[in-house]
Amino acid sequence: MKLNIALLAGDGIGPEVINEAVKVSDAIAQKFGHEITWKPALTGAAAIDAVGEPYPDATHEVCKNADAVLFGAIGHPKYDNDPSAPVRPEQGLLKMRKALGLFANVRPTFTFPSLLDKSPLKRERIEGTDLVFLRELTGGIYFGEKGRRDNGDTAFDNCVYTRAEVQRLAKKGFELAMTRSKKLCCVDKANVLETSRLWRETVQAMEKDYPEVEVSYEFVDAVAMRLVQWPNSYDVLITENLFGDILTDEASVISGSMGLMPSASMGAEVSLFEPIHGSYPQATGLNIANPMATILSAAMMFENFGLMEEGKAMRDAVNKALEAGVVTEDLANGGKAYGTKEVGDWLVANV
Amino acid sequence: MKLNIALLAGDGIGPEVINEAVKVSDAIAQKFGHEITWKPALTGAAAIDAVGEPYPDATHEVCKNADAVLFGAIGHPKYDNDPSAPVRPEQGLLKMRKALGLFANVRPTFTFPSLLDKSPLKRERIEGTDLVFLRELTGGIYFGEKGRRDNGDTAFDNCVYTRAEVQRLAKKGFELAMTRSKKLCCVDKANVLETSRLWRETVQAMEKDYPEVEVSYEFVDAVAMRLVQWPNSYDVLITENLFGDILTDEASVISGSMGLMPSASMGAEVSLFEPIHGSYPQATGLNIANPMATILSAAMMFENFGLMEEGKAMRDAVNKALEAGVVTEDLANGGKAYGTKEVGDWLVANV
Ligand SMILES: CC(C)[C@H](C(=O)O)[C@@H](O)C(=O)O
Ligand SMILES: CC(C)[C@H](C(=O)O)[C@@H](O)C(=O)O
Repeated sequence: MKLNIALLAGDGIGPEVINEAVKVSDAIAQKFGHEITWKPALTGAAAIDAVGEPYPDATHEVCKNADAVLFGAIGHPKYDNDPSAPVRPEQGLLKMRKALGLFANVRPTFTFPSLLDKSPLKRERIEGTDLVFLRELTGGIYFGEKGRRDNGDTAFDNCVYTRAEVQRLAKKGFELAMTRSKKLCCVDKANVLETSRLWRETVQAMEKDYPEVEVSYEFVDAVAMRLVQWPNSYDVLITENLFGDILTDEASVISGSMGLMPSASMGAEVSLFEPIHGSYPQATGLNIANPMATILSAAMMFENFGLMEEGKAMRDAVNKALEAGVVTEDLANGGKAYGTKEVGDWLVANV
Repeated sequence: MKLNIALLAGDGIGPEVINEAVKVSDAIAQKFGHEITWKPALTGAAAIDAVGEPYPDATHEVCKNADAVLFGAIGHPKYDNDPSAPVRPEQGLLKMRKALGLFANVRPTFTFPSLLDKSPLKRERIEGTDLVFLRELTGGIYFGEKGRRDNGDTAFDNCVYTRAEVQRLAKKGFELAMTRSKKLCCVDKANVLETSRLWRETVQAMEKDYPEVEVSYEFVDAVAMRLVQWPNSYDVLITENLFGDILTDEASVISGSMGLMPSASMGAEVSLFEPIHGSYPQATGLNIANPMATILSAAMMFENFGLMEEGKAMRDAVNKALEAGVVTEDLANGGKAYGTKEVGDWLVANV
């Protein structure tokens, strides 16, 4: 296969972890006879510094014309204390999601046996946890009308959803559930919100098309609890943008493997793959960042092209590295810590 | 002191736990020379069954004219699968909050040494956890305009906040922080929402009036993570209605003592006190429900009247009962389980 991949390294440790993902992906491509052309483009604070905006048109062109996007991380501390600064890295993220139509954010949370003890939760609570959130990513309160009235003394944010938006996301959820254990949980706040009632009735109406899928409906506050109590009781969860933002982050820390969690954002045309961790500015340039989440994101990318063996080979290599203790500082547990590059080299040699 | 307390027992186990809280409160009143007049009134599914609505005007009259409201729990399974039913117990709750102006929901999360092992989190993560959420309770997306357009195919919920609403809640937060460790965390999503930017700028402007309070600003997704990782790193947190709904429930399960957590909802005139647990319909009438959270809510009520010794006496009695193993089924851990009434009797004898 010939693949054109837009490469958005971003800020902080982004370039370093992306670098290793490229190395490992190239090794896989060579082994399986594929050819990857990487198209680097600017994003985040790096793009603001270079051209004054976080998601420049040139970057959009590259992404639009690629077969997929591999993304590092964005964010820089100089923007952290001023959420109303006129130009911010996160705006680039939102603009990109909307412009590329990345409507479904796929966020798995699973455990690695060797990392179970890093979880803040007791072992018996998380063992066997293997869940996936599908977060709607281009609608809801993120993109509704917002503003001020009364000389700035009143602020508003409008949350809007259409039936078609819900159907599109829920369809992915049902399909994913069919490939897993056929359990789907729709997370909403239908006892308070009209948008949630639309979500619920839309999903309910789709149940008949997937008679094998067992669907449950839970309120977002209840899910926020049960995720901590019994994360392994969930399988596929679908939810709207803001609830997904909160719950996927909550879910990410329970496994003890947050530094390893990949994600995908699926669009109708192009999809994007990125680690869930941030740009970790303090670690920039120190060769200590853990590249595994980005490498596992690249594995998701291969699998999304139908290249299941390739994806599996990457995931197997990561598992082997974890077992062999070829890990960065964050996972070293007092043992030897490898550098970002060295972990990448080891994986290249072992895929 | 002469106290008029509206008594809203509600549904499920509500009447049973309220009953014990009344017994223990009366014992305290007698000991300290106060006189409590209890004014029972209908609410929840019980009120729908009796008079067709969950928060009848008669109940509102009772609450409005009381010095405080003691509340049990509401909710009945017959409403659970139909969040758009025209009349639902939760609507009564929202109507009551608005009508009584209960703008600040106070939700402490703390640990009981004897219950630490019931937490899903590891002991070292939760030891020493003692935090309080102040959740704004009468504004935001709960009460904004909501509805449908396009023949029902588009739904919307509007989130609105005014500077005055934020100030009122934040003031309570600063004041509470001054009585504790002088740390305040404002939880928002100011990188996306205009209402959050209003929250943040309003709180920032108030910092100068409380120079001793150290204020931090964190995004709601980050707090959802850190609550699981290091709950004991928080002290007082203030946030808007929907974020508060999700995060306070998340926080409640980390301590292992959820069944014991009290809460208060403060208004300008009257305040309401209630356990955070629900109506637990399966346990109705079985004399197995744990009354301690309701009793601790009554303790908060006494303290809110400035009766600190009275509140402390109730809390001490609960601690003693926990140490002596005088507990209901949920906390019995294979040991002897006392009935709801028997726990109440023991506390009456021991305050
Ligand atoms: C940076 C921010 C705008 C973003 C979001 O809220 O979607 C982030 O938290 C995420 O989840 O990707
Ligand atoms: C029942 C529901 C409307 C309510 C809320 O969302 O406020 C509940 O979850 C709560 O937190 O008291």
